[in-house]
Amino acid sequence: MTNFEQRLTEVADKVTVALDQLIPPASGPEANLMRAMRHAALANGKRMRPFFVLETGAMFGASEKSLLRTAAALECIHCYSLVHDDLPCMDDDDFRRGQPTVHKAFDEATAVLAGDALLTLAFKILASSETHDDPAVRVLLIERLADAAGARGMVGGQMIDMLEEESPRDLNTITRMQRLKTGALISYALEAGGIIGHAREAERNALAGFANDLGLAYQIADDILDAEGDESIVGKAVSKDKDAGKANFVTLLGVDGARQRVRLLAAQAKEHLAIFRDKAHILLHSVDYVLNRPR
Amino acid sequence: MTNFEQRLTEVADKVTVALDQLIPPASGPEANLMRAMRHAALANGKRMRPFFVLETGAMFGASEKSLLRTAAALECIHCYSLVHDDLPCMDDDDFRRGQPTVHKAFDEATAVLAGDALLTLAFKILASSETHDDPAVRVLLIERLADAAGARGMVGGQMIDMLEEESPRDLNTITRMQRLKTGALISYALEAGGIIGHAREAERNALAGFANDLGLAYQIADDILDAEGDESIVGKAVSKDKDAGKANFVTLLGVDGARQRVRLLAAQAKEHLAIFRDKAHILLHSVDYVLNRPR
Repeated sequence: MTNFEQRLTEVADKVTVALDQLIPPASGPEANLMRAMRHAALANGKRMRPFFVLETGAMFGASEKSLLRTAAALECIHCYSLVHDDLPCMDDDDFRRGQPTVHKAFDEATAVLAGDALLTLAFKILASSETHDDPAVRVLLIERLADAAGARGMVGGQMIDMLEEESPRDLNTITRMQRLKTGALISYALEAGGIIGHAREAERNALAGFANDLGLAYQIADDILDAEGDESIVGKAVSKDKDAGKANFVTLLGVDGARQRVRLLAAQAKEHLAIFRDKAHILLHSVDYVLNRPR
Repeated sequence: MTNFEQRLTEVADKVTVALDQLIPPASGPEANLMRAMRHAALANGKRMRPFFVLETGAMFGASEKSLLRTAAALECIHCYSLVHDDLPCMDDDDFRRGQPTVHKAFDEATAVLAGDALLTLAFKILASSETHDDPAVRVLLIERLADAAGARGMVGGQMIDMLEEESPRDLNTITRMQRLKTGALISYALEAGGIIGHAREAERNALAGFANDLGLAYQIADDILDAEGDESIVGKAVSKDKDAGKANFVTLLGVDGARQRVRLLAAQAKEHLAIFRDKAHILLHSVDYVLNRPR
């Protein structure tokens, strides 16, 4: 395991512990709901978004407690979106992170409600004074998360993805869709680290540029995995887009073209980090990780 | 139309206008999502929860803009919960407020996403500096809403409702379920008016007691309507609980017993308002309205 991977694992463990403490215990007649929330949020995930919150904030010497709670809130949003996306009326997936999806392990109604509850919990976590002393910082973290996750962010991207299933897609549409569907939350991760770390404007812009390029590279890499990944390693069904006749970066660019695009975006992403000099070495490594995952 | 009903109509219109401005316009490739959000949120509703926010805040001379935006956020939560509750995997309802439910007018995936987007929008609205100058007030409004709407509030209540479908229910379970499922948001409406109006502790307690009794009375009255209402007046399917073999306040107490319980709760609710003297006359009227609706 490389140094970088060790750090990624450490952050993932911390976030899982934080989520375990933040999600209400399974008690009362509604205990089934908490069990489903825990099933969705505590399964092993790479926790890439939380990782970016923590590593970005660390560059500015920000409080780890603030970063960890914000990372946990962001992960609640990510996990809720997976639960809803996996529903039969959406992507209809049976497995996620190597275990049954929530509607398979429980039922559809519970999956809808567990997603709703995780989404709501994200904002409760950020609103708490435990997350940051300054209510102005908390409210900014909330406003930006709502933007990233809402109708003009992640949910909007998911809507485009659903609508486009029956119509042909070109590179522009897919790029836009992915920028909303997965890019918005990745951008939020970097932005949140900058907010908590009181980054200067030039630094915030650099982080935004980095997130933009990295987010797209991440998604193209995901499409490459989908096209040629091994189900047992990836932990979920693969070749779904091709089987469903859906266009994606790989079907439009070919595997080699997609790989080239990832390399280009990776180089661009790294350039944005120059402003941070040596402090950015973990973020620099994260780009290579995205490029080559999973090992 | 009584004075009270006129006021209720005025507030409902204001809230609809506010929601029309706050929900993003239907544009871009994700326009379908905004159309579904608008279908769900702009249909004629009684807007009882917004009404309580505005009338409570008005007792304290609070800013109408702050109250109206908070009321709109609360209504987003209420509307999202209706969209998700109407889904085939939940209550499977085809009509709501006299029009097709979102999954009927659009499709199930769009209904899931429109609900998610309305839920997210509620927090975006509250986080904005337009809602209140003081970020500490905004963050408190957000934290309390997340409590009222989350796993130990509305969504928890809905989970109990789903789980209890197959098992017999007694009065205690139903009372607890309703306190979470519908009571929590009604309590929030009164609490939010008090927060924005900087109510003193004794006043906040009185509002909480009032909300508690009124919320339960409201739900029992709903069960009475369900048992003997006219579908064309109520605007949604009636006799659903009886048809589904579900216990509710009417099946457990009988119509007369339920009516008596409503009268008792209404009297209790009014007593809580004594502290506010004449200023509470609109809230006093609202109790009678709940008792006798629809006319």
